[in-house]
Amino acid sequence: MLEPSLEPTISSREIYRGSVVSLRVDKVRLPAGLETIREIVEHSDAVAVVPIDTNGNIVMVRQYRKAVEQRLLEVPAGGVEKGELPEEAAQRELHEETGYTAASIEPLVRFYTSPGFCTELMHVFLARKLSSGETKPDPDETIQVVPISFERVLDMVQRGEIKDSKSIASILLAHRFLG
Amino acid sequence: MLEPSLEPTISSREIYRGSVVSLRVDKVRLPAGLETIREIVEHSDAVAVVPIDTNGNIVMVRQYRKAVEQRLLEVPAGGVEKGELPEEAAQRELHEETGYTAASIEPLVRFYTSPGFCTELMHVFLARKLSSGETKPDPDETIQVVPISFERVLDMVQRGEIKDSKSIASILLAHRFLG
Repeated sequence: MLEPSLEPTISSREIYRGSVVSLRVDKVRLPAGLETIREIVEHSDAVAVVPIDTNGNIVMVRQYRKAVEQRLLEVPAGGVEKGELPEEAAQRELHEETGYTAASIEPLVRFYTSPGFCTELMHVFLARKLSSGETKPDPDETIQVVPISFERVLDMVQRGEIKDSKSIASILLAHRFLG
Repeated sequence: MLEPSLEPTISSREIYRGSVVSLRVDKVRLPAGLETIREIVEHSDAVAVVPIDTNGNIVMVRQYRKAVEQRLLEVPAGGVEKGELPEEAAQRELHEETGYTAASIEPLVRFYTSPGFCTELMHVFLARKLSSGETKPDPDETIQVVPISFERVLDMVQRGEIKDSKSIASILLAHRFLG
């Protein structure tokens, strides 16, 4: 059951409606009675996948991220589309970005990527028993597939060479899950 | 050295300039020559702190997050203010949110919280040798301080009871760092 909002909305103003994010500004009442505003970035639910191939590699992807003006090494991920279950989105993103299909896909955890200002909920999956096929990246994505051994990825996380929060959280959770 | 942008900006439109986030839409040229737009949420650099008290507890904070309409258990965190070093911001946020001051504060890692659409870079610190004082939350924050044993926090992460990406990544990184 949803608890009643501790910051009930007095009024809401839509600033922007986009393809990846939208932005609204809510005027809210705080528990103490004061009013303030909350800037809220709306983003669809998303999925992240930790794909482990038959050699024990994590299949990572490298892509350019305009927001941070650099190429980052990440786990495959993307938005859940309308009418799609998170597990279906995970299979689709895995296939589009890496070419792999997973015979085994298990939910690991769900988390909010930036709950201070963004609605995005990310569903994390562990994908195993991979079979390969062709990649089908979105037309505006240039994605390089980079399989790296689990041990080396853990080293890279530790040394700060994986710079993406969802990838760090997903990889370390998968590592604990697999014991 | 910064590599040249793989997606050079053709034009940029400011949609909103706010107190926590701003939003711009860039028209960019893709490597293949096509043009597309990138919606980019601008957010200041931020800090997250894993504070470990003398009893071996992680000092967590619980607060309401309007974007996801629920109270979340997180590590202390917040934005780096103008003119502040990340380490100073970490000490300030730790003190404001928990009342503690750390005699030892060590950088663990830096990561982007949502590099697909947001500029936010988060600096993660491990804080030890804590001494207590009074909390000084922002006027629009209601924060409850919740010390929890490290082992129990790890269980909560595993069971999906910590629902915040930066907290999951920071806690698991601190655990590995401490061996």
